[in-house]
Amino acid sequence: MPTDVREPRRLAPGTLRVLPIGGLGEIGRNMTLYEIDGHLLVVDVGVLFPEENQPGVDLILPDFSPLRDRLDQVEAIVLTHGHEDHIGAVPYLLKLRADIPVIGSRLTLALVQAKLKEHRLTAVTREVKEGDRHAVGPFDLEFLAVNHSIPDALATVIRTSAGTVLHTGDFKMDQLPLDGRITDLRGFARVGEEGVDLFLPDSTNADVPGFTALERDIGPVLEGVIARSRKRVVVASFSSHVHRVQQVLDAAAANGRVVALVGRSMVRNMTIAADLGYLDVPAGVLVDLGEALELPDDRVVFMSTGSQGEPMAVLSRMASQDHRIEVGEGDTVILASSLIPGNENAVYRVINGLMKLGANVVHKGSARVHVSGHASAGELLYCYNILRPRNVLPVHGETRHLVANAAIAQSTGVAAERTFVGENGIVVDLRDGEAEVVGQLDLGFVYVDGSSVGEITDADLKDRRILAEEGFISIFVAIDSQTGRVIVGPEIQARGFAEDEAVFDTVKPKIVAALAEAAANGTRDQHQFSQVVRRTVGRWVNTQHRRRPMIVPVVIEA
Amino acid sequence: MPTDVREPRRLAPGTLRVLPIGGLGEIGRNMTLYEIDGHLLVVDVGVLFPEENQPGVDLILPDFSPLRDRLDQVEAIVLTHGHEDHIGAVPYLLKLRADIPVIGSRLTLALVQAKLKEHRLTAVTREVKEGDRHAVGPFDLEFLAVNHSIPDALATVIRTSAGTVLHTGDFKMDQLPLDGRITDLRGFARVGEEGVDLFLPDSTNADVPGFTALERDIGPVLEGVIARSRKRVVVASFSSHVHRVQQVLDAAAANGRVVALVGRSMVRNMTIAADLGYLDVPAGVLVDLGEALELPDDRVVFMSTGSQGEPMAVLSRMASQDHRIEVGEGDTVILASSLIPGNENAVYRVINGLMKLGANVVHKGSARVHVSGHASAGELLYCYNILRPRNVLPVHGETRHLVANAAIAQSTGVAAERTFVGENGIVVDLRDGEAEVVGQLDLGFVYVDGSSVGEITDADLKDRRILAEEGFISIFVAIDSQTGRVIVGPEIQARGFAEDEAVFDTVKPKIVAALAEAAANGTRDQHQFSQVVRRTVGRWVNTQHRRRPMIVPVVIEA
Repeated sequence: MPTDVREPRRLAPGTLRVLPIGGLGEIGRNMTLYEIDGHLLVVDVGVLFPEENQPGVDLILPDFSPLRDRLDQVEAIVLTHGHEDHIGAVPYLLKLRADIPVIGSRLTLALVQAKLKEHRLTAVTREVKEGDRHAVGPFDLEFLAVNHSIPDALATVIRTSAGTVLHTGDFKMDQLPLDGRITDLRGFARVGEEGVDLFLPDSTNADVPGFTALERDIGPVLEGVIARSRKRVVVASFSSHVHRVQQVLDAAAANGRVVALVGRSMVRNMTIAADLGYLDVPAGVLVDLGEALELPDDRVVFMSTGSQGEPMAVLSRMASQDHRIEVGEGDTVILASSLIPGNENAVYRVINGLMKLGANVVHKGSARVHVSGHASAGELLYCYNILRPRNVLPVHGETRHLVANAAIAQSTGVAAERTFVGENGIVVDLRDGEAEVVGQLDLGFVYVDGSSVGEITDADLKDRRILAEEGFISIFVAIDSQTGRVIVGPEIQARGFAEDEAVFDTVKPKIVAALAEAAANGTRDQHQFSQVVRRTVGRWVNTQHRRRPMIVPVVIEA
Repeated sequence: MPTDVREPRRLAPGTLRVLPIGGLGEIGRNMTLYEIDGHLLVVDVGVLFPEENQPGVDLILPDFSPLRDRLDQVEAIVLTHGHEDHIGAVPYLLKLRADIPVIGSRLTLALVQAKLKEHRLTAVTREVKEGDRHAVGPFDLEFLAVNHSIPDALATVIRTSAGTVLHTGDFKMDQLPLDGRITDLRGFARVGEEGVDLFLPDSTNADVPGFTALERDIGPVLEGVIARSRKRVVVASFSSHVHRVQQVLDAAAANGRVVALVGRSMVRNMTIAADLGYLDVPAGVLVDLGEALELPDDRVVFMSTGSQGEPMAVLSRMASQDHRIEVGEGDTVILASSLIPGNENAVYRVINGLMKLGANVVHKGSARVHVSGHASAGELLYCYNILRPRNVLPVHGETRHLVANAAIAQSTGVAAERTFVGENGIVVDLRDGEAEVVGQLDLGFVYVDGSSVGEITDADLKDRRILAEEGFISIFVAIDSQTGRVIVGPEIQARGFAEDEAVFDTVKPKIVAALAEAAANGTRDQHQFSQVVRRTVGRWVNTQHRRRPMIVPVVIEA
């Protein structure tokens, strides 16, 4: 795998360049750039959610630098579906150039528009549906239906003079989906007959053996759990999972219960889905939260956000008794959701909290209340055999997923040297059915924190990690730089360091002495005096307290 | 469940009081205090490892406050087995009173002694083995063999004039363990016949249906993976898992490979285990690391620590190419270990890193290379049916595990009101076969950070979390407190805040003006001036940057 940065060679006329900007080596911020003859096409512009070693970061964006100076060359943004890891960074790209056409399905565009509205942006959009063909510049696009955990997802066939690419976006192959809209394997077969020169498949579940179970298998389980409950039922799931919410509405209706949607994103997304006809609300089933709270316990279901243990979301707040919905003895809480790796502690904290309140908690570990939205290894085998792609660039996954997907490709006969397991920034050129790695760009993380975008650096995050682990000690001192004599201070402040302030009494004379000695030895420079303070305090704290807090000296001349 | 703190009633003569100090509502720092007629017995004194929201904390100890003033009344510490979550805090308790007798099995005591040596402590020990009976004060102890993921684990029967308690410690019921030492169900049956008044069972796997698989099933899998490997093999597991290491040694020997133990704790523990005869080292199989590195790739197995992705452990360092053992294309890495919840991101980071280097990574998700050390629900059913305890206090688990264990007890006929799901500090009194909750103490977390014990408070951790999320801004200013006129400063320092220092130029005049205005309005007090600075900077940073860093003002009188 190429980890060494190297400048790609100049793109030859008539060659298609493929550059994954995000989504390789990570689950999130999916974005791929296609280029031919000076024209650019962007597929998906997603966000990545931060890990615990990126404290204070709200979102992570793809690194737009490869197209920052070439925004006028972008023909369009194609969005495969409406999940945050595929559309979340669209506003940030449109802030760079507002009139890039945005192409997507009806639901996808509606979700993007809602997001853009929050950023006070509008977009030039073009709605497409499965079966549509639509040319943007030199890119001849065809859209194929794919099934995923959100309705209206589309795979994109990108035909160019250099060859044909199939870019799946996220997908699975539920053969009996709720909306009857299956992944279009007949379309895949037709494109495969024609010849797929490069295949970019979703890798998220490539290391999961077998087949992803049917979404419709969940319905009877939900219905049974609700039927057995004599008190309140809370169901938590993803706020964009229209079919999951559909099954909750149906299960509630079958049990003579009404449903209240709880959580801002849940209400917003399901309102959109219902307005556009993706969610079929049984008559009288939806009530608002205030109304639901007045009803008897055994007549309501609360459909909420927070299934990943997000501290500010509805479910966490219920668990810590900080929400209008009070959970108590005998209530049932269903987590109809996956447990995304990294969220375990948060989710178990919520489960433990709900159980302490006396709730019966049902989750995918105890009942089939969730199925994944991604194709498992068995489904990917079908895809490869139907498509028989010449070259494969697995996307959407950590290294372990990309490696697993490449192994599946090879098991169906794709040559190892035609299978590219890469990192963000890998540059793959396609011409005459031959794909080749021609370079590796050095792309970074762009952190969003509050209103700032890209101002937080990895050095800042390192500082934050040190502050979190050790706290800090700041020392202010004003001196006469000729003699090193301390005129004001030393004033010492510490936070997160966790010793009584009185401990600093022992180091203050050391600072005074060290400054005087430094001056006696000829030091005159403010920066050098600062270093003297840093060393003195650092040595003291390390010896006396076995700690390494951040030390922030300020020495000024009085 | 009692979450309200209430002082327990006075302990009546001849009544046994049971007080779990740690291990309820958490996986770790197991410790239970028994008391009768002014005599105390401690069972286990373990540590808890911190979560990501406890930054900089090395270890968490049980809160010793219930026995701090009564150390002279402690008859003994009984240790059920040698894992850190059962013995790790022994040194901290012995620092309070060095001559408390420590009772445990041979291997358990050897591991404790090694730990005490690092703390420059020695202990008064008494070695016991299965079948032994030993009275300490009013506590008549009997030890029963139990099987766990470390050899030589013991359950303890505690007979007192108030009734009989069975305290299992961690255990499972592998019916064909490597060492032939099964959990003594005949002993359990005998004690059950006699009458178990209170049962304190391990709850760790109570929510796992069925039965924990056999340890010996792993051997052939390891052997097969090693046999198929043509290059280096690295196996990572827990450094105290003697039987797992045994199977690695045997699998290596069967494949004509030697083994090098890597990692300080791995070398230390296995040396102890081999010296005491718990680890049977095939002749010539163990070599030291230097020797192993000189051998051909297909002749060695490296047995290492770091299976939980710990950043400083051997495996992580291999993954980031920061260890003498270089992992490359075609090497095999086996994670023969569980994935402890909360460690997912760290472990997957290591797996991805190793895969990027070209290694084939085998883990419990892809092959049976790990089985748990704890009894699953099916095994617990056997226990309850054999023991038929009158009262049950599930221990060792988060709320979800304790609740699951209580449900199992009730399914075998234990009355709901005789099943106690509690939190640390729950006070249960036993007399005449009747157990009753009589109080709830408020016990805290005791944090170890560097050389400090209990000095880090929850408030410090909150500061650290704020520092991590937002960074800080410190402002120093020396003023004339009569006029509020600034004489030195404002000097502003920020870390983790991530803006150019130049941004502070705009707030400095605001500080100067605010101080002057405060003085004009009659402020003279240094603390009030500090608040003025805090508010001024806080308002500015919130409005201008939408951030909430910690603000640390220092105002002194010049």
